[in-house]
Amino acid sequence: MTPDRLSATFAALADPTRRAILARLASGETSVSELAAPFDISLPAVSKHLKVLEGAGLIERGREAQWRPCRLRAGPLKGIADWIEHYRRFWEESFDRLDEHLLDGDA
Amino acid sequence: MTPDRLSATFAALADPTRRAILARLASGETSVSELAAPFDISLPAVSKHLKVLEGAGLIERGREAQWRPCRLRAGPLKGIADWIEHYRRFWEESFDRLDEHLLDGDA
Repeated sequence: MTPDRLSATFAALADPTRRAILARLASGETSVSELAAPFDISLPAVSKHLKVLEGAGLIERGREAQWRPCRLRAGPLKGIADWIEHYRRFWEESFDRLDEHLLDGDA
Repeated sequence: MTPDRLSATFAALADPTRRAILARLASGETSVSELAAPFDISLPAVSKHLKVLEGAGLIERGREAQWRPCRLRAGPLKGIADWIEHYRRFWEESFDRLDEHLLDGDA
């Protein structure tokens, strides 16, 4: 994954409404109006969020003329998971140190 | 992790220079001027990136008066790893389908 691709994915995810849209699509493809229903924002505002997600490759739109369902595309999320994996040892070490601290407390 | 905290973390990571700074800090704490050295940008520009990372809780600055080393803080990265874990089955399913497709091709 190129740096710009990764930046576009992180930027697309930096919004709670866009993450909520992805969470909804995780349970299956759906139309824009169904996607918009739970949000207290206008249909154009939802469309704008969908464009950002589509630009980052996180969703795709069906080609059907009347009903263009939105679908989740997980490839860019795997890119982020791979990136973050390099840092896993840092938070696991923190918890290990906490464990040691607690064990020392018991001794 | 609250939605806003997660958004701040994703936004902080949506920049290749900031990710490069974190990669540098993964090999140990260092000063701002050492951090800035490999980048073709001004020291104030680096400081601005550090403020964004600090605001998102991804780094902390030492309290020493003369030399305030920057350190990686991995907590927010764990927040993102936890979030992304909910989507793992989607990219793993894609690869499973690809495997099946390849196996079908062999049969």
